[in-house]
Amino acid sequence: MQIEVIANVNEARSDQLAGKTVIVIDVLRATSNMVVGLAHGCVGIIPVETIQETFKWQQPGDLRGGERNCKRPAGFDLGNSPFEYMGEEIRGKRIIMTTTNGTRAMQKTCKAHTVLAGALLNAASCARAALGLRRDLVLLCAGTQDVFSLEDGLCAGMIASEMLRLAGGERIAINDFGLAMMGCYEHHRDRLHEALLHSANGQRLAKLGFSDDIGYCAQTNRYDLVPVLVDGILVPYH
Amino acid sequence: MQIEVIANVNEARSDQLAGKTVIVIDVLRATSNMVVGLAHGCVGIIPVETIQETFKWQQPGDLRGGERNCKRPAGFDLGNSPFEYMGEEIRGKRIIMTTTNGTRAMQKTCKAHTVLAGALLNAASCARAALGLRRDLVLLCAGTQDVFSLEDGLCAGMIASEMLRLAGGERIAINDFGLAMMGCYEHHRDRLHEALLHSANGQRLAKLGFSDDIGYCAQTNRYDLVPVLVDGILVPYH
Repeated sequence: MQIEVIANVNEARSDQLAGKTVIVIDVLRATSNMVVGLAHGCVGIIPVETIQETFKWQQPGDLRGGERNCKRPAGFDLGNSPFEYMGEEIRGKRIIMTTTNGTRAMQKTCKAHTVLAGALLNAASCARAALGLRRDLVLLCAGTQDVFSLEDGLCAGMIASEMLRLAGGERIAINDFGLAMMGCYEHHRDRLHEALLHSANGQRLAKLGFSDDIGYCAQTNRYDLVPVLVDGILVPYH
Repeated sequence: MQIEVIANVNEARSDQLAGKTVIVIDVLRATSNMVVGLAHGCVGIIPVETIQETFKWQQPGDLRGGERNCKRPAGFDLGNSPFEYMGEEIRGKRIIMTTTNGTRAMQKTCKAHTVLAGALLNAASCARAALGLRRDLVLLCAGTQDVFSLEDGLCAGMIASEMLRLAGGERIAINDFGLAMMGCYEHHRDRLHEALLHSANGQRLAKLGFSDDIGYCAQTNRYDLVPVLVDGILVPYH
């Protein structure tokens, strides 16, 4: 089995993902919100690239969520904070979601065999699911505007480390970038919240008043739920 | 002061380097050899991109060194092993050097204010030199065929960590990729040789019989010498 960690969406070629398991990672905050939303009774999340597309998918009762420049787009029901994805208003609903980086990363995965959404919140469950799928794995860090984001790399490192631990004797080959992210995660594992506060996105979100989001998204393994993309809709993986 | 670590040559845009100090890093083995050669009495190293260009620069008495596919090109005086850059035969000589990644990275830096060559062998001296230059710094990891190489990232992390330590209270901003490399270096700092053996280049070189090169290049701060590019020729920085 091979694990390849890719630093940002821009570096991913869809051919490189063909036939593989792909875990898309956008810790601050798209994939964290996907986990939180599905764990709180939302029945499906549809990741789309543009605000225009949210209209195309929307059916009566559906909610629209996401961000542009970290903020809720005009007319949207939900922004991009995990606390908006855990209330009664999302229970039983579908959410059409568009964010600057995370949902765009999802669009790159059209040739993958299986697409999961990973975050620190569900990292260990992602590792178990990916091992169970028994295919080569790509951990696709969404990054920010085509630049690597520390929090996504830490999450990729955590998932890869957990897979190695679970795999026991099985031989798993990891690319150099993955080895680097594993080392980085091991160094920061006992103070991930602090590391996220130092990251560029952490600093940006704190300035905009979203410090609580960072603390929430820095929690590890709070959820067992792993979102999986089925016919363009994220649902819980079983 | 800002420190930006760039993951591989392909990601560097020459505009991004304009007016800055740039440290080119190719631990296995180009920049390690540059340090070793100049420390052993070679009077100048001319990094060029192609084998053709080595002929253009060569004057009577000059040596040609480098590699293609990790091996010495036909007709060259020196290959790409550090042990070839420490003997009597290079003393007082100029070396025209071409390698697949490291010398190509040098060519990208035409707009930089100052270009240094960094390796684990001279990491602390690079940090001191870069601080003294008092300009924004780019640590340019050469990588391998446009892909990130672990050993270059570890070296970038070491130089950045050393700069932070030396700078004391001075405010230094570091990009997310740099923060990740610092974390990775801190995790591996007491067993860098082992980390290099696990890297893709380490495994490739070991298979080709160059295991001793890996051990040599994994040594930290063995040299005080920092190569600096002056009119296309690397000479010791003072």
